[in-house]
Amino acid sequence: MQERIRHPLFRDRVVSADEAAKAIRPGMTVAMSGFTGAGYPKAVPQALAARVEQANAAGERFRIKVLTGASTAPELDGALAKVEGMELRLPYQSDPAVRERINAGTLDYIDIHLSHVAQHTWFGFFGKIDIAVVEVAGIRDDGSLVPSSSVGNNKTWLEQADKVILEVNRWQPEALDGMHDIYYGTALPPNRRPIPLVQPDDRIGEPSLRVDPDKVIAVVETDAPDRNSAFSPPDEASKRIAGHLLDFLAHEVKRGRLTDTLLPLQSGVGNIANAVLAGLADGGYRGLTAYTEVIQDGMLKLIRDGVLRMASATSFSLSPDGIAEFNANVDFYSKRILLRPQEISNHPEVIRRLGCIAMNGMIEADIYGNVNSTHIAGSRIMNGIGGSGDFARNGYLSVFMSPSTAKGGKVSSIVPMVSHVDHTEHDTMVLVTDQGLADLRGLSPTQRAKQVVAHCAHPDFRPLLQDYFDRACRDGYGRHTPHLLGEALSWHQRMIETGDMRPAGGG
Amino acid sequence: MQERIRHPLFRDRVVSADEAAKAIRPGMTVAMSGFTGAGYPKAVPQALAARVEQANAAGERFRIKVLTGASTAPELDGALAKVEGMELRLPYQSDPAVRERINAGTLDYIDIHLSHVAQHTWFGFFGKIDIAVVEVAGIRDDGSLVPSSSVGNNKTWLEQADKVILEVNRWQPEALDGMHDIYYGTALPPNRRPIPLVQPDDRIGEPSLRVDPDKVIAVVETDAPDRNSAFSPPDEASKRIAGHLLDFLAHEVKRGRLTDTLLPLQSGVGNIANAVLAGLADGGYRGLTAYTEVIQDGMLKLIRDGVLRMASATSFSLSPDGIAEFNANVDFYSKRILLRPQEISNHPEVIRRLGCIAMNGMIEADIYGNVNSTHIAGSRIMNGIGGSGDFARNGYLSVFMSPSTAKGGKVSSIVPMVSHVDHTEHDTMVLVTDQGLADLRGLSPTQRAKQVVAHCAHPDFRPLLQDYFDRACRDGYGRHTPHLLGEALSWHQRMIETGDMRPAGGG
Repeated sequence: MQERIRHPLFRDRVVSADEAAKAIRPGMTVAMSGFTGAGYPKAVPQALAARVEQANAAGERFRIKVLTGASTAPELDGALAKVEGMELRLPYQSDPAVRERINAGTLDYIDIHLSHVAQHTWFGFFGKIDIAVVEVAGIRDDGSLVPSSSVGNNKTWLEQADKVILEVNRWQPEALDGMHDIYYGTALPPNRRPIPLVQPDDRIGEPSLRVDPDKVIAVVETDAPDRNSAFSPPDEASKRIAGHLLDFLAHEVKRGRLTDTLLPLQSGVGNIANAVLAGLADGGYRGLTAYTEVIQDGMLKLIRDGVLRMASATSFSLSPDGIAEFNANVDFYSKRILLRPQEISNHPEVIRRLGCIAMNGMIEADIYGNVNSTHIAGSRIMNGIGGSGDFARNGYLSVFMSPSTAKGGKVSSIVPMVSHVDHTEHDTMVLVTDQGLADLRGLSPTQRAKQVVAHCAHPDFRPLLQDYFDRACRDGYGRHTPHLLGEALSWHQRMIETGDMRPAGGG
Repeated sequence: MQERIRHPLFRDRVVSADEAAKAIRPGMTVAMSGFTGAGYPKAVPQALAARVEQANAAGERFRIKVLTGASTAPELDGALAKVEGMELRLPYQSDPAVRERINAGTLDYIDIHLSHVAQHTWFGFFGKIDIAVVEVAGIRDDGSLVPSSSVGNNKTWLEQADKVILEVNRWQPEALDGMHDIYYGTALPPNRRPIPLVQPDDRIGEPSLRVDPDKVIAVVETDAPDRNSAFSPPDEASKRIAGHLLDFLAHEVKRGRLTDTLLPLQSGVGNIANAVLAGLADGGYRGLTAYTEVIQDGMLKLIRDGVLRMASATSFSLSPDGIAEFNANVDFYSKRILLRPQEISNHPEVIRRLGCIAMNGMIEADIYGNVNSTHIAGSRIMNGIGGSGDFARNGYLSVFMSPSTAKGGKVSSIVPMVSHVDHTEHDTMVLVTDQGLADLRGLSPTQRAKQVVAHCAHPDFRPLLQDYFDRACRDGYGRHTPHLLGEALSWHQRMIETGDMRPAGGG
């Protein structure tokens, strides 16, 4: 195995994680790597959590602000949340311990479009970044950094932080070297120029990250795996959702609105996304591209089979099997996968130019097509908006998908009025559930409602929704978006009280 | 006066408005020019309305779908609405007769981001465009068209419509010739390229509109003024709102986040916008730019005084006094004003690159910063979202403004939960009322609520909002965005029932 730290200056700065963590002091703003459980620092956050715990035991308060790319893992978010070590967290998270504290009101969480994080940092909207803690796969002879399994906001963190701690993780495949494209052409207004990316496979930057060596206060060596979520095969509801969406895409190709190579695909993570990807292979598609955030196992298979010609993302989030498959065919995959900073993977300019097909999950949608991606019953955060807004607003198509019910059929994902809005009626074109698909393009609100109720609602809830809509059309304050405000959120209120959205006796 | 129709082929096609309107048949999709009461066709829509009225009298149904740039005037929207001649209308409207029919449920209205209209037409999402009716200021020797006082979607209408009717309006100043920049570099994905606009004054296109002469079935000569809304001086509430916003901008300059030439300004229309513009002059600013949708009288004065170095827009909507001022100083103004297609004036790529300061009005905001720009009590449409979403999502700053109360103090513009969401918490940075300004950047939902209640709410409603927030923090289903769903929309319900958001006895 080759030495991962090939520059002497950085070799001189190697210390233990405990030693490195000492640089982090209460009240600091610390920016860390990590996106979808890939490429996050594994040692320093845990060492920091131990220090916080000691402080807690001594009756001292030790809390920091933590910025990342997106979700991380128990070693970072979980460890720091469990010792109450964070006062602020942004942008996306999916950790149970973090979620619990946000919803208990003891941890402030800023849910923000992923494309906004880097620029808002540059604008100074989050204040000064004291320290960056960034995992890399290696340090080159020239002192530049081989990025890890995710890029996220690392370019910004390395540039904006006062001081830098690097974790060099030898577990990361050496073959990552060369798979990244770090764009250094960004600027602050009024000095911005067009981003010269016109195809998903365009290389517009450099393979490695730059860092000012004077800022690097510590280098920590690790050999630890990424979160490594296992890849679960799609369930029946996901397969039906995928089936409806694939029928729709085939219809669009037939109508001549799309060619048989479609347009660059953006796909959220999870069961439904995996089912859609699998369906593309079964549908006979070849030579497609992905311009998305995360590459998971399912996409490797599509690349292997030629369904995908290539994939651009910001995170490479594989299961142990996926890692093995990648390592066994490195030469093949490394020519067909590009990892970029998330400000480029999620950039409105690029997404709109490429005309991405945006496919994302949702918690619920209302009959008019407003989508809630983040909140249970309007108050309790689940994960966050992630990049769904970047892609839905700017894509060629915006698709939102969910099983039609949850909690054993007690909760409908189609409701009279969503309890929180992340994507407005102006930004949603297609809704899909296991029941069917509603194509909302070119429809007014009441026309939309008819489609959503008829095609997406579960039969147990369809008559209830139809009844609400009919009465709202009759008695609402206006007939453009008819609502009965005294009743619009009653389904959620009932769910809070009884665990069931259905009226008593109606289930 | 010079001949406005300088190409013989077009001169041969001159007919009366009545004759031209005969080409429009029931069920057709008709795309018309017009943006903020400027540059809309004045004769053919009225002739069409007369035909519809005849059909109505004969017991026949005659309704068409009408697409425009944005709002028009009584001669178009009003005339067609009054005879029930429209079955569908998009995108933005502000006509009382149209609004009445939308809210009665007899006219379907699609409220859509202004930047989406052209591309969704090209994507085929609105079906075929049968006829375009476009006002121009003249026809050149080479058959190209001198655009009128607004550009809107005219490029797209002329290209996408099967047939074209032109209205050549000699009332429009001849000096408009040369003030337009029509970009012909757009394409459909996957063939899109970067839009080469990096400063508000960049010219990237041609001064005139192209049209295929074979599609032009009629040319109608008119001599009729634009809607010509009178310019009303700002009221006290508007002046206070402007004062708070100008203090904030000065603070940002002082902190070094903005230079003293700020960044390109986008400003909605109306009283508050005018007050802000007037305040910029009083604040000693010089050499600013505007990258916006509409140029109104107030902006002419700023250009005249050197406060604005130049302004880019898609519509030139002046009062009679404004027109006189423009005509008297044509050479000066025509070098400092550019009119573009709205797909460029509102393009996310360009707005984000330039880093616009987006300043728009709102109907209401909730304590968490979600903004309703369009609906009264969730159901009744006012006008539409217009370009506010294009600018708020992509600008450097997104500011929403409103007086803190309406209806003589009975209705609060700050509410527990908005009754409709056009701009989500993810897209709103600054809220301003006559009471003060809430800077929401870098704040979590509960931190935001404290700012909004303290700084933006009217004193009559502040204790009620504080009480709601306190109880929601205590009893809500989650503490991330605490709400009491049984009560969240009760203020609107009370307003519907009593005309007053305040509880009985509380006012």
